[in-house]
Amino acid sequence: MPNKKEIINIKNEFENELFNSVIPFWEKHSIDKNNGGYYNCLDRNGKVYDTTKYVWLLARQVWMFSKLYNQVEQKDTWLKVAKNGMDFIRKFALNENKRAYFTLNEKGKPIYLQRKIFSECFYTIALAEYAKAVDSNILLNEATSMLKLIWDLSSDPSKVGREKLEGDSGLQTLAIPMILLNVIEEVAGTDFFEYKADIQKLIQEVRKHFINGKVYENIKQDATLENSSEGRLLNPGHAIEAGWFLKHWAKKLNDKSTDNLADNIVRKSYETGWDNEYGGLYYFLDAKGYSPTQLEWNMKLWWVHTEAIYANLLLYSSSKSDKDWERFMQIKEYSFQKFRDTKYGEWFGYLNREGKVTHQFKGGPYKGFFHIPRALLYSVKILEKLINENNE
Amino acid sequence: MPNKKEIINIKNEFENELFNSVIPFWEKHSIDKNNGGYYNCLDRNGKVYDTTKYVWLLARQVWMFSKLYNQVEQKDTWLKVAKNGMDFIRKFALNENKRAYFTLNEKGKPIYLQRKIFSECFYTIALAEYAKAVDSNILLNEATSMLKLIWDLSSDPSKVGREKLEGDSGLQTLAIPMILLNVIEEVAGTDFFEYKADIQKLIQEVRKHFINGKVYENIKQDATLENSSEGRLLNPGHAIEAGWFLKHWAKKLNDKSTDNLADNIVRKSYETGWDNEYGGLYYFLDAKGYSPTQLEWNMKLWWVHTEAIYANLLLYSSSKSDKDWERFMQIKEYSFQKFRDTKYGEWFGYLNREGKVTHQFKGGPYKGFFHIPRALLYSVKILEKLINENNE
Repeated sequence: MPNKKEIINIKNEFENELFNSVIPFWEKHSIDKNNGGYYNCLDRNGKVYDTTKYVWLLARQVWMFSKLYNQVEQKDTWLKVAKNGMDFIRKFALNENKRAYFTLNEKGKPIYLQRKIFSECFYTIALAEYAKAVDSNILLNEATSMLKLIWDLSSDPSKVGREKLEGDSGLQTLAIPMILLNVIEEVAGTDFFEYKADIQKLIQEVRKHFINGKVYENIKQDATLENSSEGRLLNPGHAIEAGWFLKHWAKKLNDKSTDNLADNIVRKSYETGWDNEYGGLYYFLDAKGYSPTQLEWNMKLWWVHTEAIYANLLLYSSSKSDKDWERFMQIKEYSFQKFRDTKYGEWFGYLNREGKVTHQFKGGPYKGFFHIPRALLYSVKILEKLINENNE
Repeated sequence: MPNKKEIINIKNEFENELFNSVIPFWEKHSIDKNNGGYYNCLDRNGKVYDTTKYVWLLARQVWMFSKLYNQVEQKDTWLKVAKNGMDFIRKFALNENKRAYFTLNEKGKPIYLQRKIFSECFYTIALAEYAKAVDSNILLNEATSMLKLIWDLSSDPSKVGREKLEGDSGLQTLAIPMILLNVIEEVAGTDFFEYKADIQKLIQEVRKHFINGKVYENIKQDATLENSSEGRLLNPGHAIEAGWFLKHWAKKLNDKSTDNLADNIVRKSYETGWDNEYGGLYYFLDAKGYSPTQLEWNMKLWWVHTEAIYANLLLYSSSKSDKDWERFMQIKEYSFQKFRDTKYGEWFGYLNREGKVTHQFKGGPYKGFFHIPRALLYSVKILEKLINENNE
């Protein structure tokens, strides 16, 4: 078990990374002062290499700066950054049916509408967190009605996803119940009573994906496994993230069974995902050991690792198990050593299997101001709690 | 310049690879004897790891076995394999509008229809080549009307591709004119008079993508460059393949200017694409040197290399330039050393940047019986020609 001094050092390290490296990078380079919103595609040194704006990333950045304002310090500069993004996406991100686009051009004109619900989900958590920052019931109501829309869309396969043809085996993806659990957590906060039945339903959906110690990304409608590449697909980072979403709900609901499920999902997925030869967590695996068909299966991605940092620490904070702490330290050290850019700040996003940086950019179509600061902030909160416990 | 003995040795090596390693692997493992058609997802040893059937790959395999039958030897077994695939796709691959699905299940039921024209293109070349094998005007007419359909689709952006929203800059992709040139070559053969205007138009389209010595995958409608990740995208293997498509047409049309264009495209793309540190050709590059956003950008893919083998040899056969021969030998040696599986036959498809195999499978969603046997067969034809010239 770590001693108090060790925990304090780690907390300082995390805070230093968050406040002196990650946040300043995005504050300095991402703001589009002419058109509003943020640039997402930032090269290693912050230079904009593409002006396309990704609604996932715009919304997540609004959410994250609002979160910092709400949970760390009511800094005007943070609120201003959040407002700059919120105004832009409220103006440009939704179409006439309140569906959120996937990409916009620099000026906000729509480029592409995905047949998925994730843009809407991130838009909604941005609204909800920003509403708290500016204490706006109007915006909170917008978030609530977006959540209703997302719920309707997610229950109606004709409205999202590919057209379902006769030969489609109709696999159910982990992503949907998982992201809904997170959106409800963000929108409802402590006031989740009216969502209780939905939450229980979603937890059961996630539970179905955990079969024989593995979290399968895709399962059949009858909750059995399909012996296909999609049916055998494991995504350890995604499973670990789902694990801590569940653990948050387990605490709110005071639900021991869900808490156990969450712990098992995190621990087993971490074990399955860890690369014993080169370290780090794989992006994709095949449950039966075939090569995944995804070309990037063996790469090491930043978000997989930051999710695992926070999840392992969260587990340790309740279990106080040496094994959970060891895993936290293992993934923390791998990540801090391999992903950080000590020259220009922020983290690289992509390593090859051997741990070498493959992509220079700091922001890209799927990497924004979200997973790293969220994991660092949430981890700091846990580390503070551990320090306080040590004082008692 | 190579001597005759060297050329004969290479020809023997290529024939051995084609007839004793590649063809037997697919003859033995890919045939679905119960449902018809072929399995595409074959593990290293040939085991089927997924029963999804990919129309691109079904059709290309029909085309390739028909080609072998038409150009090498009228072996009943080859025709039987071709028929097994042809019957299956004629029965199952098209919907009521003659659009070709992207994926079918094992039994032939449709899974997914892409918003692209490539399934239709490969379906059409399969029909055309198989029609020659069985001397069927009915099938050749089917191919001709499919080509007409593809032409109409490709000229009508509302029918293929994403819905065009206001912010979409409407980049033109190299893939369309390039694949059409190949489909017309396959369907029309030597009898291309009625397509002559179309062909000239397509060659001009391809030419527009060659700007300042680089082949840009995507250009603006006014044939200028867009300074974005998509606008700067280079795909050297694709460009090299387009190069030899052009060179085939240059010969048929006796068109020196197109022949020069083809040579320049192949040579420049090879230089741009070659990895000076680890060898092999990159999959994607950014023309201004940013990291491409594709996670797999630095991987080495089998088809990129087989296209370059044939293209360099084709160039050498007319130029007799030492430099073209050197490049041919360089890419041939890299490929034979890194991609071949001397244990189970066939080639691996995917290497990391350093040249290590990353995926064990021989057949996957995009890798079938096509690029390797086509390049080997076409190269053997050129090598035979070179040997004969040496005799004169």
